[in-house]
Amino acid sequence: MHAQEMISTHPHVKGSTNDALVRCIEECFDCAQVCTSCADACLGESMVQQLAQCIRLNMDCADVCSATGMVATRRTGSNEEVIRLMLEACMTACRLCGQECERHAGMHEHCRICADACRRCEQACQQAMGSIGGMGARH
Amino acid sequence: MHAQEMISTHPHVKGSTNDALVRCIEECFDCAQVCTSCADACLGESMVQQLAQCIRLNMDCADVCSATGMVATRRTGSNEEVIRLMLEACMTACRLCGQECERHAGMHEHCRICADACRRCEQACQQAMGSIGGMGARH
Amino acid sequence: MHAQEMISTHPHVKGSTNDALVRCIEECFDCAQVCTSCADACLGESMVQQLAQCIRLNMDCADVCSATGMVATRRTGSNEEVIRLMLEACMTACRLCGQECERHAGMHEHCRICADACRRCEQACQQAMGSIGGMGARH
Amino acid sequence: MHAQEMISTHPHVKGSTNDALVRCIEECFDCAQVCTSCADACLGESMVQQLAQCIRLNMDCADVCSATGMVATRRTGSNEEVIRLMLEACMTACRLCGQECERHAGMHEHCRICADACRRCEQACQQAMGSIGGMGARH
Repeated sequence: MHAQEMISTHPHVKGSTNDALVRCIEECFDCAQVCTSCADACLGESMVQQLAQCIRLNMDCADVCSATGMVATRRTGSNEEVIRLMLEACMTACRLCGQECERHAGMHEHCRICADACRRCEQACQQAMGSIGGMGARH
Repeated sequence: MHAQEMISTHPHVKGSTNDALVRCIEECFDCAQVCTSCADACLGESMVQQLAQCIRLNMDCADVCSATGMVATRRTGSNEEVIRLMLEACMTACRLCGQECERHAGMHEHCRICADACRRCEQACQQAMGSIGGMGARH
Repeated sequence: MHAQEMISTHPHVKGSTNDALVRCIEECFDCAQVCTSCADACLGESMVQQLAQCIRLNMDCADVCSATGMVATRRTGSNEEVIRLMLEACMTACRLCGQECERHAGMHEHCRICADACRRCEQACQQAMGSIGGMGARH
Repeated sequence: MHAQEMISTHPHVKGSTNDALVRCIEECFDCAQVCTSCADACLGESMVQQLAQCIRLNMDCADVCSATGMVATRRTGSNEEVIRLMLEACMTACRLCGQECERHAGMHEHCRICADACRRCEQACQQAMGSIGGMGARH
C-alpha cells in the first residue's frame, strides 16, 4: 500500500503525516479485502448454514472498513467529526466480526486469518482515534 | 427502489418490515448518488476552488451513505450495534454536507438539490435510529 | 432517484441530458441494492448451499452495477471508453445473475424480484450503450 | 495485503492459487486507494481547474479498480466472463488515468506516484487476463 507516500505529497500536508491514521487506512483496506474473501470462503464451505452470521458480519465489516479507509484518506478541507464516527463504527464492526471469526478459527483457516486482520484493524482504528486530537485545530 | 419489496421477502422477516429503516435505506442510496453527482458538478464549475470543501464533504457523504445503505439492508443474522453506529455516522455526514451545500444553493442548483437529499437522509437516519429499539430482541 | 435532476444541473450539461444513460444509472443503483438484498435473503434460506452460486453472482453483480452507476454519473471531463466497457461488463453481470435468479424464482420471491431488476438493468445498459454514440464529440 | 493467504485457504482452491490473479487483486486495491488519494490531493492544489479531468479519471479508476478487486477475489462458484470483462475495463481505466496523471507528474508528486500505480495495475490486469485461460474448465 502507498497511503503514506500519497498522503505525504498532498499540498496541505507537506510531509508531516499522522502515522497512526495512515496505518489505520492501510489496515482498513486490508481488512475490507480479507473480509470479502472470508465471506466468500465461508460460502464455499459445506457447513455454510452454521456460518451465515459470520458471512453477514464479514460483509458488513468489509463495507464499513472500505468506507472508513476512503473517508480517512482525504486531506483536502476537513471532516473530522465524520472520520471520528467512522473510526468508531469501524472499530465495533471489526471487533464483532473478529469475535465471530475467532469462533470458527479452529475449523477454518480463513476465519483465523480474518480474525487477525479484524483485530489489527480494530487496534489501528483505536490508535488513529487517539491521534486525531492533534488535528483538532482543523475542526 | 425496491428495498421494501426485497426485505419483506427475506425468510426471517416474513412480511413485517421496519418501515423507518426501509425508508432510510432508500434515502441512503439516493443521497449517495446525489452526492457523487454534486461532487462531479462542483468539479465542473469555473469557481471550483471555492467548492473544494463542498466536494470533499460530498465524497465522504457518498461513501458513508452507501456503506450505511448496504449494512442496513441485511437481515440474515444480526449486527444492530454496527447499524446504529453507521446511522449515527451517516446522520452527521449528511448534516455537515447538507449545511455546506446549503451555502452554495443560491449559486448552484445541484447544491440546492443535494442539500435537500442530505436533509431527507439525515432525518430518515434519525427516524430509523428511533425505530431500531423494536429490533432489540434480535441483538 | 434524482439522477435526471442532478445531471441536468451540471454546468457542462445545461439541461440536455442523455435520457437512456440517466435511466441506466438509476437501474444500476436499484439493481445493486436489490442484488445485495437478494444475496442476504438467499443466505438466510435453509437451503443456502444450493444458493451459493446465486449469492456469488448477486455480490459480483452488486459491485459491478454500483461502480457502473458511479462512472456513468460523472459529466466533468470525459471517460467514454471506460463508461462503454463498464456498461458491457454490467450487461453481462446482470444477464448471468438474472438467469441464475430466474432458476430459483419459483421457490424464492426475492430471486424473482431480483431476476426482474437484473433484466431491467441489462436492457437499460444496452440502450445506454446505443445512445452513447451521440456523446462521441466529447471523446 | 493478504489476498494470497486468504484465497489459498478457500475450500475450493486448496492451496493452488492463480498467482497472476492474486497479484492483480492486490494491485487493484492499491490503485483504488492511490487514485482516491490523488483525486483528493489534486483537489487541494491551487491549479485545481486544470486538474479537473485528472480528478475525474482518478475517481472513475478508483471505482473500477475497487469493483474489479472484489469480483476477482471471489472463488465460490464461478463468474469468469464477468471477471474477464472487469479486467478489461480496469486495464483501460488504469491506462487512461495513468496517461493523464503522467502529464502532471513533473508538477505534482502525487500524480507521479499515481501514474506508477495505474501502470502496475494495468499490467497486472493484462497478466491476469492471460492466466485466466487455465480457469476455463470452470466456465
